[in-house]
Amino acid sequence: MKKADVVIVGGSAAGIEAAITAQKHYKNINIIVIRKEEEALVPCGIPYILETLGSVEKNVMPTALLGDAELIVDEVTSIDREAKSVTTAGGEIIGYDKLMLATGSSPVMLPIPGTDLDNVFTIRKEIDYLQRLQEAIKKAEDVVIVGGGFIGAEFADECRKMGPNVAVVELLEHCLMLNCDEDFCIRIEDKMRETGVQVNTKCRVKSIVGDTKVEYVECDKEMRFKADVVILSVGVVPNTEIASDAGLQIGEHKGIWVDQYMITNDPDIFAIGDCAEKLCFFTGKPVPIRLASVATREARIAGANLFQTRQRRNQGTIGVFGTLIADTAIGVAGLTEGAAKNFGFDLVTGEAAAVDRHPGAMPGAREMRIKLIFDRHSGKMLGGEACGGITSGEIANVMAQAIAGGMTADDLAAAQIGTHPALTASPLVYQLVNAAEEALLKLR
Amino acid sequence: MKKADVVIVGGSAAGIEAAITAQKHYKNINIIVIRKEEEALVPCGIPYILETLGSVEKNVMPTALLGDAELIVDEVTSIDREAKSVTTAGGEIIGYDKLMLATGSSPVMLPIPGTDLDNVFTIRKEIDYLQRLQEAIKKAEDVVIVGGGFIGAEFADECRKMGPNVAVVELLEHCLMLNCDEDFCIRIEDKMRETGVQVNTKCRVKSIVGDTKVEYVECDKEMRFKADVVILSVGVVPNTEIASDAGLQIGEHKGIWVDQYMITNDPDIFAIGDCAEKLCFFTGKPVPIRLASVATREARIAGANLFQTRQRRNQGTIGVFGTLIADTAIGVAGLTEGAAKNFGFDLVTGEAAAVDRHPGAMPGAREMRIKLIFDRHSGKMLGGEACGGITSGEIANVMAQAIAGGMTADDLAAAQIGTHPALTASPLVYQLVNAAEEALLKLR
Repeated sequence: MKKADVVIVGGSAAGIEAAITAQKHYKNINIIVIRKEEEALVPCGIPYILETLGSVEKNVMPTALLGDAELIVDEVTSIDREAKSVTTAGGEIIGYDKLMLATGSSPVMLPIPGTDLDNVFTIRKEIDYLQRLQEAIKKAEDVVIVGGGFIGAEFADECRKMGPNVAVVELLEHCLMLNCDEDFCIRIEDKMRETGVQVNTKCRVKSIVGDTKVEYVECDKEMRFKADVVILSVGVVPNTEIASDAGLQIGEHKGIWVDQYMITNDPDIFAIGDCAEKLCFFTGKPVPIRLASVATREARIAGANLFQTRQRRNQGTIGVFGTLIADTAIGVAGLTEGAAKNFGFDLVTGEAAAVDRHPGAMPGAREMRIKLIFDRHSGKMLGGEACGGITSGEIANVMAQAIAGGMTADDLAAAQIGTHPALTASPLVYQLVNAAEEALLKLR
Repeated sequence: MKKADVVIVGGSAAGIEAAITAQKHYKNINIIVIRKEEEALVPCGIPYILETLGSVEKNVMPTALLGDAELIVDEVTSIDREAKSVTTAGGEIIGYDKLMLATGSSPVMLPIPGTDLDNVFTIRKEIDYLQRLQEAIKKAEDVVIVGGGFIGAEFADECRKMGPNVAVVELLEHCLMLNCDEDFCIRIEDKMRETGVQVNTKCRVKSIVGDTKVEYVECDKEMRFKADVVILSVGVVPNTEIASDAGLQIGEHKGIWVDQYMITNDPDIFAIGDCAEKLCFFTGKPVPIRLASVATREARIAGANLFQTRQRRNQGTIGVFGTLIADTAIGVAGLTEGAAKNFGFDLVTGEAAAVDRHPGAMPGAREMRIKLIFDRHSGKMLGGEACGGITSGEIANVMAQAIAGGMTADDLAAAQIGTHPALTASPLVYQLVNAAEEALLKLR
């Protein structure tokens, strides 16, 4: 029987980062990574394959990242916890000292008729499949995206650049509603519409209709959308079959239960990334956040904990996220106002808008709006949203460190920031600081 | 005698921000701002007047920012602490309940012959003066910048865009040496040279030579630079004359001494911005940091403390800074390795480089290098430097919040970050996290 000190099941972002971290923290261990795919795709880069990158090949993660870890291209079908081994579809049995599950997630399939028609796609991390999707869009006149979350919105934005008519059908009141508050959603929807995407919200898909190939998408309120291609982007579900078959505990949001050290209910098995349950930084309760940056963070925690199991602690997931639709970026950290209210927080918000360079006559200057959300009781920051240019992505990271550091509205209103005419807003109007000051004055 | 609840002396970034903050925190108070200039310039925007903005007018701070505060254009010549009033050059006496000194700083004049020749300029925040400087450069074939700090480097970068030959003469081993470590300085120097600026380091100016107008700059090592225009950019000195005349205490770095609440040794007088002494966040010792973002932060602290004097505390200045030379930006927070060593810290550093978008084929992707500096004893972050594209400015703010929150290398190696293909580096190689991991492994 083949055996390794560490067997990692799954070789996308989480699995690769776990292999990297394990090698950094533990010398002279052998690691086997088992994944189904010869090559793994950059998960967040998938929408950009369509037009910005132009090909699937440009979105491949270099296998060299695995370093000295051995890659086996195969599928793990079961775990024998007693024998401490995994069995693969190829019939191999591989023993482990520590097992790391990084099995990812799969697209949710809508329970409606017609999802099996030709040219109905989900978003799979598979090279051939995505190539077929790209080819189908190239020939399409009408593309319908079902689901206006950030991935749906990114696909819509890429599709429209390729030429076809693009319609987004979203069940909720707004696109991106799980990621940011209404006013920020509307900003992105406006951008989508400006660039020619037809945005339909509060719209439920009833069926996908066609002979062998999709012809249109049938919705409630007697709405019907012509479609040569349909992309279903309605969420993902953790891949936990081998884990639950092996008796590992599954959490409320269908991920593999893990403790603060990323260890499952088997002390020799870790779970990380989309397949693992996440606890909220603010409430300690399970949250359905699935992002590559969260997955790699969990891999860094688990990788360090492999043989010294209490090294690095996961104090809960803040959730930090960015996207770019047309020329408008959004960066979000922590809870939205809506989410914070749902969790029962008594909150206070502050907002500020200003150009992101200074003076406003600097080339490339554009408006950035920031909203911050604070707990009225402790004054601590619960979340923040930025909408503007490219720097919104790193602004989300500024906000995330402020949250992680337990900063209050008062702390942030006198935050230590650096500014430069060509790089940031003016220190007089720096949005993060001014939004905090606004919130603080309401807290009084 | 005219009287106000608050009299602010100086109306540049610090004075304006103090007026704004005071109005936010205290309703129904009257505020008088006294400054010499009808219009104030955006301090950091001054180099960009030359070419990027193209005119001084585009770099004016709107007076409307003062809100309901009354602006008096005049110069305060003395303070009568007993009568609680100030006297102006125009002969007015104005009473105060609280006085806020935001008198700024003035360019250091080199103690060498020839600084009084025509076409020898310093960098003054004066509209007419800067217009004359701009006109002189337009006609110049050769411009020499004395002092290669970030302001000198920015002036050099703007001048070369206007066409003349530009030479920088710097006394220290490298340009920007007070702002970042050697390898980062060299990156900027390389950029300057690439764009045609002649960079001369370890070079001491002995005299400026000419008949009535400058003709050349004479240096040690028998070096001589032809010059139609010379710009002296060798630092600033706090404007503290009226403060010291009034018996206010002056600090080690020549700023007006203030406590953690920005109060001078007179409980009714605050001092903020370039004229005020700054204490280091890491050591509590005086540091000669003078930045607009620091000035406005002090104004936010002082403004909130005006009538409830222990509201907001200054826990010491981290110093966060950014610049852009040609297409390369630098963002720095906290101590450089050099500064940390000078302060006696036993330190450990980590570095990481990667493209700032992902995958690397994303348009606009370019390398960003980050170096982090940690205290070996506590593991806490002492400083960080980023060199790359536009987002380096906000990366400095990510680093600053990490420092302010007392994050250690271990905290940062599993920091909560958000990533997006078009906005940030990949989560697998996010430089801040990987640099922290590298440092952490050295700490073991």
